[in-house]
Amino acid sequence: MKPIRIGLLGAGVVASGVAQVLARNQAEIKRRAGRGIEIARVGVRNVDKARAALGAEIELTTDLDALVRMEDIDIVVELIGGTTRARELVLAAIDAGKHVVTANKALLAVHGTEIFAAACRKGVMVAFEAAVAGGIPIIKALREGLTANRIQWIAGIINGTTNFILSEMRSKGLDFDVVLKEAQRLGYAEADPTFDIEGIDAAHKVTIMSAIAFGIPMQFDKAYVEGITRLQATDITYAEQLGYRIKLLGITKRRAEGIELRVHPTLVPAKRLIANVEGAMNAVVVHGDAVGSTLYYGKGAGSEPTASAVVADLVDVTRLHTADPDHRVPHLAFQPDALDDAPILSMEEVVTSFYLRLRVADQTGVLARITGILAEHDISIDAVLQREAGDDENQTDLIILTHDTQEGRMNKAIAQMQSLPTVLQPIVRIRKEELNN
Amino acid sequence: MKPIRIGLLGAGVVASGVAQVLARNQAEIKRRAGRGIEIARVGVRNVDKARAALGAEIELTTDLDALVRMEDIDIVVELIGGTTRARELVLAAIDAGKHVVTANKALLAVHGTEIFAAACRKGVMVAFEAAVAGGIPIIKALREGLTANRIQWIAGIINGTTNFILSEMRSKGLDFDVVLKEAQRLGYAEADPTFDIEGIDAAHKVTIMSAIAFGIPMQFDKAYVEGITRLQATDITYAEQLGYRIKLLGITKRRAEGIELRVHPTLVPAKRLIANVEGAMNAVVVHGDAVGSTLYYGKGAGSEPTASAVVADLVDVTRLHTADPDHRVPHLAFQPDALDDAPILSMEEVVTSFYLRLRVADQTGVLARITGILAEHDISIDAVLQREAGDDENQTDLIILTHDTQEGRMNKAIAQMQSLPTVLQPIVRIRKEELNN
Repeated sequence: MKPIRIGLLGAGVVASGVAQVLARNQAEIKRRAGRGIEIARVGVRNVDKARAALGAEIELTTDLDALVRMEDIDIVVELIGGTTRARELVLAAIDAGKHVVTANKALLAVHGTEIFAAACRKGVMVAFEAAVAGGIPIIKALREGLTANRIQWIAGIINGTTNFILSEMRSKGLDFDVVLKEAQRLGYAEADPTFDIEGIDAAHKVTIMSAIAFGIPMQFDKAYVEGITRLQATDITYAEQLGYRIKLLGITKRRAEGIELRVHPTLVPAKRLIANVEGAMNAVVVHGDAVGSTLYYGKGAGSEPTASAVVADLVDVTRLHTADPDHRVPHLAFQPDALDDAPILSMEEVVTSFYLRLRVADQTGVLARITGILAEHDISIDAVLQREAGDDENQTDLIILTHDTQEGRMNKAIAQMQSLPTVLQPIVRIRKEELNN
Repeated sequence: MKPIRIGLLGAGVVASGVAQVLARNQAEIKRRAGRGIEIARVGVRNVDKARAALGAEIELTTDLDALVRMEDIDIVVELIGGTTRARELVLAAIDAGKHVVTANKALLAVHGTEIFAAACRKGVMVAFEAAVAGGIPIIKALREGLTANRIQWIAGIINGTTNFILSEMRSKGLDFDVVLKEAQRLGYAEADPTFDIEGIDAAHKVTIMSAIAFGIPMQFDKAYVEGITRLQATDITYAEQLGYRIKLLGITKRRAEGIELRVHPTLVPAKRLIANVEGAMNAVVVHGDAVGSTLYYGKGAGSEPTASAVVADLVDVTRLHTADPDHRVPHLAFQPDALDDAPILSMEEVVTSFYLRLRVADQTGVLARITGILAEHDISIDAVLQREAGDDENQTDLIILTHDTQEGRMNKAIAQMQSLPTVLQPIVRIRKEELNN
């Protein structure tokens, strides 16, 4: 099959992320989607600026109205933001029978009802995973993963800027104004941070989640919106003393009388997982009557995390609306004729770091001998802890954390250490993973 | 459209959960799926026992081979477990052209390649969200939500029994054997706990995730499997002193040389979210090259959480394989003609608990007056904290946590408290959510 052809509106941070991800992972994405996905044309305001951001090979145009109607475009990706021009272009694309993918939460929270009605009439898809919580597939979880449930409430940290500010206020005991300036310096907050710090961005997102969770129209105008600008460091401290953290949450809740839809600073018990989401990260808790509470966590903004959601939507549209029925969503994610024969490695070849515990005789030179053996096998040490092992003063526990090494190499080192007369019991070895990248 | 008709194999805990959820949420599920979903027949070994579990109205049969081939069945749901009889029945259902939904991780990890090949030949779906991490939609995240990414690794707490045991060992400093007995008494561990504590169950699940993440065939026989039976309380304590928690992780990782696929106790930095997943809960971290790390958390087992995933698969099959193209996955999760007109409540009507901070004169009777006002408005108090507010000895900070109340009521109480001469500054009010049910 011919590749799916994308008309991309916008050449900003997310657009260049989409171009990068599609280019870098093109083989893998094609194995999943069953068709290639290529950017046919990009609609921009300034060709020279866009050329610098997107590279020399992509075809550019400044005629966005023509672009969204072009014969040879299958899907329009709207990444220009705002609610006026974006609305016109999305409606024009739908009218021309194009599927649309957008990351524009404001557009959907305000004009969603109109846009989805138009899309239904034309039988096209408007996909918007990137509009809420960036790279976290929360729209998919709500719309497809939790369909068995009567969803009862959703509470989310859905604005990274404000979560970064609150994390810094708490950990450093600083006031709002001070931290906001730091966030601006680090690029976590915009020069005009109003949309974020006043809770408007979060309100757009919770409006969208509320509509999907409860099957109601988008009603941004009825959301209660309170930001974090008046929050004082004192209250963060008192909350902590009482066992709580303060987070800016987007909350929507179903009650017998109606739906609650609100954004405001909220005390949350410190032991809840969501209370421990720090920095610019996002997390959403969804509570369903069958599943109970589930939580989804990840990067809620940024070029490639947001692009991750945009491209997932492109694959969805490709699978569900352009493929034959047997190729909709492959059992194993990849098309059956595109499986990989990468070998499963033996444990000898596996690479991890290690925790080792040795019961050793409490003598001079024992540590030197053991660390010497590790060095001989090229295993480098991250930390050492030596502890008296109870009453017997002639023995001691030696705990060693290593850096990454091959298991086969560690097996040899352990065998050699075990044979030392000063190692008194079988060596305990537990693998360690930092899980940081 | 006529309802989709289910043939259910099994009458155990998950099967009765599926029957309950489908019955209780039938209207909501139909609004999402575009068609009703009904259990037409249940295949069981013992009719009397099944009657007690599933109620009087469901049609039962002991002829499972006939059931999976019946003309009027659209989807076969396999919940009998095991790999022999389940394999026969699933292959027979596929051969008869039925879509299949299964929660059987052992079946897929061992016979998945054969089953999916058969399903592809017949053009039917085999859906298995419930096979990994119960109600958490992790299969959907891997197969659809993260399709833009080159997935680099997955690390998951995917066995609730062992996580419960490890949590108890750590928090109570007890040994494995003691906690295992407690877990059995509480129903968190089976009478024969081998599959869980030896890591086999986790290995089935990580095998399935590995296949989907990397586009490789199921290769359970090549997984390295090490359980928690030899883990000692000493090592949990030492790990904690070094800033780590020990979790039984299912890990799969892509390296240039091949794929790592393994289950073993693992030290994880205590500051990672996954290290703080306690009790019988499950959580999976997926690291993709575009999105970075994302985490999915929830109940990994139990009747209704597992049923949540089974029914989501039923909705998926209904939407993707039996509906017309325009009704595949509705924009707002619910079919466009099935939206709800539940009102958005005003803030006055919203119910939350509250944190209040009052700067008050340090005089006798102030606390009594303030708690009296709250009582007059039927607002009950959860906790009170009184703190000296800096150098000025005539003033003090009074912090009050309340139980749930209507915002309108709280507004009136605050207005009344604010008018007291002993309340010296504007009262600070922050809403509080326990997020526990």
